[in-house]
Amino acid sequence: MINKIAIFLNKIFKRQEKINCLDMVDIDQIEAKINYVFNNKDYIIQALKHRSFLLVTNESRLLSNERLEFLGDSVLGMVVVENLFRRFPTKEEGELTKIKSLLVSSKILARVARQIGLGEVILLNDAEEKAGGRNRSSILADAFEAITGAIYLDGGLNTAVAFINEKLLSRINEILSEERNKNFKSILLEYSQGNNLGVPRYRVKKEEGPDHDKLFTIEVSIKDKALGIGKGNSKKSAEQIAAKKALKKINIL
Amino acid sequence: MINKIAIFLNKIFKRQEKINCLDMVDIDQIEAKINYVFNNKDYIIQALKHRSFLLVTNESRLLSNERLEFLGDSVLGMVVVENLFRRFPTKEEGELTKIKSLLVSSKILARVARQIGLGEVILLNDAEEKAGGRNRSSILADAFEAITGAIYLDGGLNTAVAFINEKLLSRINEILSEERNKNFKSILLEYSQGNNLGVPRYRVKKEEGPDHDKLFTIEVSIKDKALGIGKGNSKKSAEQIAAKKALKKINIL
Repeated sequence: MINKIAIFLNKIFKRQEKINCLDMVDIDQIEAKINYVFNNKDYIIQALKHRSFLLVTNESRLLSNERLEFLGDSVLGMVVVENLFRRFPTKEEGELTKIKSLLVSSKILARVARQIGLGEVILLNDAEEKAGGRNRSSILADAFEAITGAIYLDGGLNTAVAFINEKLLSRINEILSEERNKNFKSILLEYSQGNNLGVPRYRVKKEEGPDHDKLFTIEVSIKDKALGIGKGNSKKSAEQIAAKKALKKINIL
Repeated sequence: MINKIAIFLNKIFKRQEKINCLDMVDIDQIEAKINYVFNNKDYIIQALKHRSFLLVTNESRLLSNERLEFLGDSVLGMVVVENLFRRFPTKEEGELTKIKSLLVSSKILARVARQIGLGEVILLNDAEEKAGGRNRSSILADAFEAITGAIYLDGGLNTAVAFINEKLLSRINEILSEERNKNFKSILLEYSQGNNLGVPRYRVKKEEGPDHDKLFTIEVSIKDKALGIGKGNSKKSAEQIAAKKALKKINIL
């Protein structure tokens, strides 16, 4: 809707005039979502401005949210790392690095952005909007980082820490336990589809023993390439083991 | 020397007793090098403790400098990024990212560490020392990051910013101009040697035209694999072009 107004204005005036984004977005709504009131509203406008929107406003690339995202990414990194460093005094560096990578991954940041409702307020052009940009993880995660950068510039480090604590770090236990419980079959499926390799195929290779004590041997393959074999008393558990072996084989685990 | 004393003590007592590192390092000397006096000397000791030294002291992996390096890396990242963000208001995110990667690369951090003289004070075991650990870039860069983390914990963010400014960011113009003037042949040589592929070989494939207007065609190869061809009026310029093409082919440029 916002974009349509902008394009409409562009068409009417047919000039390269700067569009005043402040007129087009509901700042109060955004500030309520992120629970912070900006002194300088330019920062939050820029943080929401996906580069596709520059085609609408005829602005320089410098005014998209990419520079703020660059800044916010590093602020987020430091705040998360310091938190993990103090929270887990007995974890080694390698483990902390893994947890950090998960917390600042596009997947998690996009989820946080969705919970805040950033998709509704981000500024995209019409094409990007039609292509589903409002729900694209990379766009949402970038916007979350850009907002972190904007809050840092506007309110300083402590304000940014409060934002990151409230939106991300308060959920750390939930995120970590979910990750631990994630099952290997779904991780393998995600990998396989994410790399355009289709769906993993599970085949029963052997079925042994009496009914009350069956032993299944199951092989998992992707694109006809066998990746792992699992044995278990149920098909489900044998598949999980096969999937785990496959993930190790392709260096995901 | 320090390590020898420690090993000697270990041999004499033949017990798993903790060695007091404070007795083994010249804290004043180190503090003078980094221009900061620690309130808690444990931080600086830990920052200098390479994991190989744990074999000498029989300490847990948690007490090597790796956790501090993890913290320092993120502090360094944020301080460098904020500096670049403000220093270059007209550079786009992609360019800022490249500059940041250069500044926090092992190559540059190791050089800064050498200028400070960290190699002389780092704590390594005998084997690592004999293997040239005191001059290894990865060990030196890690120690620089760990010291950044130690200063951050001991003195807070502003103290860490002052340290990073003095040791790294004050040299940014020098580092960037050096990088711009770097020639492609030397980048290719660095890559090749860094990956244990030996020295690139330049071969004249063709020599055309009269003496006053020669055209050289030169091919560069690494391990007998041809990577690029360059043409130029001198061998030197043809080699540069060939090296540039090779760097593009192997995705370095």
